[in-house]
Amino acid sequence: MPIVTLHPDGMMIKVPSGTILLDVIHQAGIGLDASCGGEGNCGKCLVRIETGKMESDRSELLSASQEAQGFVLACKSRILEAPVTVEIPKLSLKSGGQFIDETDVIGMEPRALISSDSIPDPPVSKHFLDVPKPQLQDGLSDLDRLTRSIQRKCGKKEVTVPLPVIRQIADALRADAGKVTATVADGSERIYVTALESGDRTSQQFGIAMDIGTTTVAVELVDLKSLRALAARTAYNDQIDCGLDVISRINYARKPERLEELRAKVVRTINRLVKAVCRGCQVDPLEVTSAVAAGNTTMIHLLLGLNPEYIRLEPYTPTIMQGCDLTARDIGIEISPETIVSISPAVGSYVGGDITSGLLCTSIASGDEKVNLFIDIGTNGELVIGNQEFLLTCACSAGPAFEGGGIECGMRAAKGAIDRVSVDPGSGIASYQTIGDLKPAGICGSGMISLLADLFLTGWIDPAGKLNREKESAAIRIEGRQARFVLATAEDSASGKPIMVSEPDIENILRAKAAIYAACSLMLKQVELDFAHLDKIFVGGAFGRFLDIEKAIIIGLLPDLPRESYHYLGNSSLMGACKALVSRQARERQLELYRRMTYLELNTNPAYMDQYTGALFLPHTDIKRFPSVEDLIFKTRKR
Amino acid sequence: MPIVTLHPDGMMIKVPSGTILLDVIHQAGIGLDASCGGEGNCGKCLVRIETGKMESDRSELLSASQEAQGFVLACKSRILEAPVTVEIPKLSLKSGGQFIDETDVIGMEPRALISSDSIPDPPVSKHFLDVPKPQLQDGLSDLDRLTRSIQRKCGKKEVTVPLPVIRQIADALRADAGKVTATVADGSERIYVTALESGDRTSQQFGIAMDIGTTTVAVELVDLKSLRALAARTAYNDQIDCGLDVISRINYARKPERLEELRAKVVRTINRLVKAVCRGCQVDPLEVTSAVAAGNTTMIHLLLGLNPEYIRLEPYTPTIMQGCDLTARDIGIEISPETIVSISPAVGSYVGGDITSGLLCTSIASGDEKVNLFIDIGTNGELVIGNQEFLLTCACSAGPAFEGGGIECGMRAAKGAIDRVSVDPGSGIASYQTIGDLKPAGICGSGMISLLADLFLTGWIDPAGKLNREKESAAIRIEGRQARFVLATAEDSASGKPIMVSEPDIENILRAKAAIYAACSLMLKQVELDFAHLDKIFVGGAFGRFLDIEKAIIIGLLPDLPRESYHYLGNSSLMGACKALVSRQARERQLELYRRMTYLELNTNPAYMDQYTGALFLPHTDIKRFPSVEDLIFKTRKR
Repeated sequence: MPIVTLHPDGMMIKVPSGTILLDVIHQAGIGLDASCGGEGNCGKCLVRIETGKMESDRSELLSASQEAQGFVLACKSRILEAPVTVEIPKLSLKSGGQFIDETDVIGMEPRALISSDSIPDPPVSKHFLDVPKPQLQDGLSDLDRLTRSIQRKCGKKEVTVPLPVIRQIADALRADAGKVTATVADGSERIYVTALESGDRTSQQFGIAMDIGTTTVAVELVDLKSLRALAARTAYNDQIDCGLDVISRINYARKPERLEELRAKVVRTINRLVKAVCRGCQVDPLEVTSAVAAGNTTMIHLLLGLNPEYIRLEPYTPTIMQGCDLTARDIGIEISPETIVSISPAVGSYVGGDITSGLLCTSIASGDEKVNLFIDIGTNGELVIGNQEFLLTCACSAGPAFEGGGIECGMRAAKGAIDRVSVDPGSGIASYQTIGDLKPAGICGSGMISLLADLFLTGWIDPAGKLNREKESAAIRIEGRQARFVLATAEDSASGKPIMVSEPDIENILRAKAAIYAACSLMLKQVELDFAHLDKIFVGGAFGRFLDIEKAIIIGLLPDLPRESYHYLGNSSLMGACKALVSRQARERQLELYRRMTYLELNTNPAYMDQYTGALFLPHTDIKRFPSVEDLIFKTRKR
Repeated sequence: MPIVTLHPDGMMIKVPSGTILLDVIHQAGIGLDASCGGEGNCGKCLVRIETGKMESDRSELLSASQEAQGFVLACKSRILEAPVTVEIPKLSLKSGGQFIDETDVIGMEPRALISSDSIPDPPVSKHFLDVPKPQLQDGLSDLDRLTRSIQRKCGKKEVTVPLPVIRQIADALRADAGKVTATVADGSERIYVTALESGDRTSQQFGIAMDIGTTTVAVELVDLKSLRALAARTAYNDQIDCGLDVISRINYARKPERLEELRAKVVRTINRLVKAVCRGCQVDPLEVTSAVAAGNTTMIHLLLGLNPEYIRLEPYTPTIMQGCDLTARDIGIEISPETIVSISPAVGSYVGGDITSGLLCTSIASGDEKVNLFIDIGTNGELVIGNQEFLLTCACSAGPAFEGGGIECGMRAAKGAIDRVSVDPGSGIASYQTIGDLKPAGICGSGMISLLADLFLTGWIDPAGKLNREKESAAIRIEGRQARFVLATAEDSASGKPIMVSEPDIENILRAKAAIYAACSLMLKQVELDFAHLDKIFVGGAFGRFLDIEKAIIIGLLPDLPRESYHYLGNSSLMGACKALVSRQARERQLELYRRMTYLELNTNPAYMDQYTGALFLPHTDIKRFPSVEDLIFKTRKR
């Protein structure tokens, strides 16, 4: 097998000839950027062949000079028989500012998950049992006696005990004279026993809620006894190396070994977060005995190792959409192994369990006939419109910009992220706030929205997002045809490098906000409604808790409606998963909403592109749609 | 970690200090005899310390001269820090004649498992489905469409699909335009989908029946399409190195790593047999999609990795007795991984699923009021007595002698085994038949019974089993106080070593037959019946298909009743498992019998020992119990 040497580290790796170079580099644990999922479209996995030769497809993304220097796209290069030495340029590596790999606490106090007057009814709970001692010739096995004790507590349903738990019964029953604690998932027809401990362990009942996003993964630890959320953490999905958006990941997963790579990566991300969140609360992950996972349809497919290809191909049919209950052991999540992981149901290929979960945080379909809107802003934007009579839903692709992805100094809404900016109209110099009041490490999605809103209001960028080259400002650096806005100087920043926002960064945000606004206005059109018909607007999204609705309206991400209509939910997918963790009623409601939703495919609708193009400006080509913004511009610039 | 060198092979192995030497030797893959399960009782794991020192418990089984030579019991010796060299004498090794490790075909023609007028109703079967193509926005996932297709065929029950099968759905549905074959376990309330293939694969439907005995394991391959048994094989249970009987195994399993060792050993035995039986029929083991396992309670505990200790301790309570359905993957059986392995229900600690399975081959509780008896002769003897009104059952320990265990030249009823013997009254010289008409390799249980019966009738052994030292015979070799009977000379035998039966071998058979006869007569007494009340006697047993009822009566193993009362079934546990494999009705009948059986504990009954002692002679202390044998002796010796 040929040997590949990878510089700058000089790591050597033996692989079968014919292996794709990108796979070799990922196998070596190096986070080479493959934003397009290894399709040869983004040109980010640029590497240089130092010595030796490989078979590379020609690419229009490479200049003649790059080709002459030996640059190739790693995703389109195959190893031949001979040894080869490859240099991976720093620029192609993930470890730059783009995705800082950190696991960050979402700053939160333990919070109650159900109101004090609700009756708690967690679907999985622990029961303390006093199992009778074995008797000579009563014909009852240990399992029989355990089963009967459970039935006495939970009703005469069929009791199922998986083999690993059966293995513990004999010793558990005898350790404390029959006193045991059984963790029980109490279904309508059957009872599953998912863990067994000796003694009374009912005071320790923990669950985890998971939101599995394309860009970020979030895990929240919940105390099922007090019904309070204890702590939450988020991290970038390790799959990011294999494509920035859902389509890139699907493309990447076309080979079985790459599907397995993606599966292992997201499981690793989850396990890291589970460990971190448990460590912070001094809980052993093996004490976690309940779990709910919400995620978009593709992410759930990848988590479960299901081929996602048919999500991308017409007629866009996923393998599973209905919710399902699987064991942590089967999925690979390192908590109490027989724990049932309840997967939230999806409505369509691009409206997943994150949305049915997020809806649990809204009152979209309760009460009256007024029409409400739910928008979930993440790598994909998903919308649900409706009331108690109807529920319509659609999806659009926003890209990872709101989560810090594809932005030069972008980062998640973690500690050190700039999340609020104001720009001095005269000098153009920005002042900012960071999360945790630390030296700035980068800028998060809400920070970008805040910055763009203020740059626009103060006239430092034009409606197309171009920086003002006419007025002089210490904050604007012009290099050839490109201009950058300096948010923090090298001295002020945590890394010692300046924090800057480039015009391509701004374009990324414009494209993301246009996708969502366009989807929103087109969906209303489909049901012959207008923004004015909306009563409540629920805004969810994994990209931070700091979204400023006012600023989001200024850049044209959200429609210009009375501010009191807006309800910002934060990570509604994660919050909904927490609700499903502690309340059987919430799960039933989720199922009911899921059954009532109708899925609209917007991407095959030609009118969508018109709406999108119109929305690519600040706030919109048609400024009349944003009267309050027009007013604000007037007021700000007059000063 | 100290190094242990094992001679004669010189294998070196590093182990933590404190490790028991027996574990070191087993870890090295060497089959050292530990018939008592490592309790220090049998003295068979004798090894000699060549150099170095270890911590050994003193044993009364060692003579002063053995101690002086450095002999120790491996099961009672612990490794200290220093290196040590150990010599394993040939006599202590399993590879001698005692247990020949071979996987033998039970000579059989494919045979029908249900009568031609019965309606076939296998609980697991394949269904050919034509699943509709995916449609844009019909809201149905692949799993939804598959589920509906199955429900159309099997009725509107809940359909459960395990994750590994879900992973195959997308590609299987698209490989042949929706034409798939689903393997379905169709329960009363739920349907499990345990395998999915593209195209029509219904012509290939295979199942395996397993009988897991203490001494031997048997596997039969069944064609579920034609409902015929194709081939069967038996082998010694690999656990034999860790104890000859159930109690020794339980003792051996006291440490968790030894329990795991036993579990792995029986799983390995099964997998070897599955491979062999499949290879013989050119079936890929992964095409086996249905399985039934029957075994005694302890063997099932060890197979599933359940701590068996409480079976041995009062009040003798197993972890499970009721039958259960587990996946091949969870148990470790290498067939189609999600195949449901149905475990036969046990009635008590010593009346296991092998008995409820064996009863399926009898008409013990059908028809009229006449009382019938079922005897299963294996390492344990189990008895069931009853009719349509009542069913009583009990167990006794016979030891492995009938299966060739504990007999110097003993072997299973495999090719080359002497299975019939007749002894010339004058010369005492034996003529014999072997299975397959080969050169003899050893003697099997039925051969021993045949030999003893003839030696006794011809007066070459006395009622206590001692060889006649008064008359001279070329077949009898007297060495000091011990005498041996030569069945085959070195030239005549397959191994080049003579095949001999020693007086201790004969005593083993006497003890085994006495245990069974005593249990039988005591159980009848308990229900105030006598042998004369019995109508039919069903004799099952894993030790061969060649049991001669006449000879078994002569040695006093079976009561002296009209020969036409007897029905010899062979391996009834395996045959019953085959029936459960192909017939739902058989499974229901098994459950019904299981529920109706009452378990009697004989071992705590003081009268048992009296009965046993009386039965330790040929045919019995009270010859009047065996009038036809008395008659035969008279006739034979008169000649």
